[in-house]
Amino acid sequence: MTEKLKGNVLIGQSGGPTGVINQSLAGIVFEALKHEEITGIYGAAYGIKGVLSEDFFDLGQEDKATLEKVAATPCAALGSVRKKPDEEECYKVLEICKKYNIRYFFYIGGNDSAETAKIIADIAISQDYEMRLFHVPKTIDNDLLITDHCPGYGTAAKFVAMAVMGDNLDNLSIPGIKIDVIMGRHAGFLTAASSLARMYEKDAPHLIYLPENPFLVDRFLADVEDTYSRLGQAVIAVSEGISGEGGEPLYTTGEVDSHGNIQLSGTGALGDFLTNLVKKKIKTKGQLRVRSDTFGYLQRSFPGIVSEVDAREARLVGEEAVRMAVSSAGNGSVALRRLGNGNDYGVETFITSLSSVARRTKPMPPEFIAESGNDITEAFITYARPLVGSLPEIGRLKKVKV
Amino acid sequence: MTEKLKGNVLIGQSGGPTGVINQSLAGIVFEALKHEEITGIYGAAYGIKGVLSEDFFDLGQEDKATLEKVAATPCAALGSVRKKPDEEECYKVLEICKKYNIRYFFYIGGNDSAETAKIIADIAISQDYEMRLFHVPKTIDNDLLITDHCPGYGTAAKFVAMAVMGDNLDNLSIPGIKIDVIMGRHAGFLTAASSLARMYEKDAPHLIYLPENPFLVDRFLADVEDTYSRLGQAVIAVSEGISGEGGEPLYTTGEVDSHGNIQLSGTGALGDFLTNLVKKKIKTKGQLRVRSDTFGYLQRSFPGIVSEVDAREARLVGEEAVRMAVSSAGNGSVALRRLGNGNDYGVETFITSLSSVARRTKPMPPEFIAESGNDITEAFITYARPLVGSLPEIGRLKKVKV
Repeated sequence: MTEKLKGNVLIGQSGGPTGVINQSLAGIVFEALKHEEITGIYGAAYGIKGVLSEDFFDLGQEDKATLEKVAATPCAALGSVRKKPDEEECYKVLEICKKYNIRYFFYIGGNDSAETAKIIADIAISQDYEMRLFHVPKTIDNDLLITDHCPGYGTAAKFVAMAVMGDNLDNLSIPGIKIDVIMGRHAGFLTAASSLARMYEKDAPHLIYLPENPFLVDRFLADVEDTYSRLGQAVIAVSEGISGEGGEPLYTTGEVDSHGNIQLSGTGALGDFLTNLVKKKIKTKGQLRVRSDTFGYLQRSFPGIVSEVDAREARLVGEEAVRMAVSSAGNGSVALRRLGNGNDYGVETFITSLSSVARRTKPMPPEFIAESGNDITEAFITYARPLVGSLPEIGRLKKVKV
Repeated sequence: MTEKLKGNVLIGQSGGPTGVINQSLAGIVFEALKHEEITGIYGAAYGIKGVLSEDFFDLGQEDKATLEKVAATPCAALGSVRKKPDEEECYKVLEICKKYNIRYFFYIGGNDSAETAKIIADIAISQDYEMRLFHVPKTIDNDLLITDHCPGYGTAAKFVAMAVMGDNLDNLSIPGIKIDVIMGRHAGFLTAASSLARMYEKDAPHLIYLPENPFLVDRFLADVEDTYSRLGQAVIAVSEGISGEGGEPLYTTGEVDSHGNIQLSGTGALGDFLTNLVKKKIKTKGQLRVRSDTFGYLQRSFPGIVSEVDAREARLVGEEAVRMAVSSAGNGSVALRRLGNGNDYGVETFITSLSSVARRTKPMPPEFIAESGNDITEAFITYARPLVGSLPEIGRLKKVKV
């Protein structure tokens, strides 16, 4: 048993928000309140930015009911930031931690946040300042190394699955070609979650394009033409991160120049580009109805839709970070190990080194990607299904012909 | 009491789907089953298109549980269509009705569907064929004349309110300028529903632009600049239907030409256009974060989110159409009259003529639009609140400074 380390807790939230990032915040606060060596619980406004400006909130003054309500509310309650501090700033962060007697630092974020945590932890060690620094994982992209999956993913995946369920119904109502652009710049996990929308035979998505495979325009057009000629419709899930064989983004090559000054992210440009491509290249009798939707920030911020499993696990990793911090002298990142699937689904936590999750990201493993390159495998469904939880029931008429 | 008219029921769904259009379908079927003079209940595939091709389903063969599940499922279960039949086709429709002994025709749709119904009803009268033809209102745009509000609107408005609640949280996490493009080409009701997202002081939307007012680019930029300088953020709700002083669409004028071949609807073009405008014209210290989302088809198709009031009323107008059809010799459109607001909210139905709702649409009345031209009034909130039903609770920290 490590000697008790008396001092204050500092919590920061970093990177793109998720639907359950505040569950981790609440988990840290509630667990911290149980340990007498923790004298105060501070939250930094906008992650490392608020640490540098000493912009701290006293989370000990929040009542339990408010914290529970905040836990169930999407997006970073403390404010978040995409800032990567330089070395000088990391030294300054440590000085501020010393000033406020911060002995426990919990940074909720993705791989970039783990890297920031690692740098600060190393400086603390080099200066013999005892501070336990734990990274608490969150990302909707599910692209962190080591952990089986990432809190935040299940809830975003649920939104995507529901959105595509709706789009399937919409396209059954008025058939055509529909392109849905889904978040995830380097990893296809979120786009792949569109597959959970399939309830009945021939349900959408009919084609899925992931950033793990090069996106070949001719192949895509052939796929769409084939699907449309077979089904009279095609609902297509496309990752925002698809790129050509050389890794170049789709909509800055060839015809895409006509987009002119259009922004390259957080826009409808990719969807519009693919729509125009299909309209121009696919010949049918009559007018082809081609539309696109870019699901955008709704995927990470939509309130009232949460994966129950995801919410529970996000709370757990927060609690566990505190338990590990008070009981061990080190630092690290909380990870999840899967114990079973289907009805036997469950997880346990373990600690991995900050460096093992810092910087690099994890793509979809090959066994989750269909050989055709335009779909996922059953192995992915088995992996993703328990993370998403319940989905709405979809009724369908028997449609007995008169 | 009118003499009982023995024969079959035909039901069609028309126009853009809604989240509760199948409640009206179920309402018609369940009510029709109660009346002995109704010998069969048929559904037309894809509205008038399926009538013309005699593509009918026997809805009497659907079991109650399936119908209830379908009722709770968004989008047109029978299939929908945007087709406006020409005169010749309307004559053909009547011949087919005669062939199948259709004596009760229920057409679920918007103003165009009411017009189609009116033409067919007039032909039936001119040929002395007794057929009772009722239009059952649905639209997410809420732009039908006569009725207080339109089934389908409350559920879409709930989705929009929830999406903007999430976007407000997202923008509080990582502040910037955010433009949300919302459906409703001629009427601003759906865009105005974004105002229901406001829970706490200074919550988004900070600016609302409706199609009822001309959209003046300079005014817009001044509004955004002012909001951003006051709040450090700006979340803006914009109708897809905004147009310049001469009624010209925004993104086919001036700078917009650079969009080249971009489609004019069902795309991210308007959001991207406004984003680029703000980026180019608004000067700030540091980099300005400007993003846009186009909520797209999710607004009318997202499953699992429904206004309970809307679902109930959509069922009611379907039932009422059948009750009126069996008890009166005429034709018409079912409308809703509001009986009270707030806790006293309630409606009753009445019948209005097909011609009174056909073709023309209703914009937002002036008393719902703020004089500033960039917001709505309290009168709109009073009007819209009961239609949307419950919204998720949003927790917020007290944020006591350390």
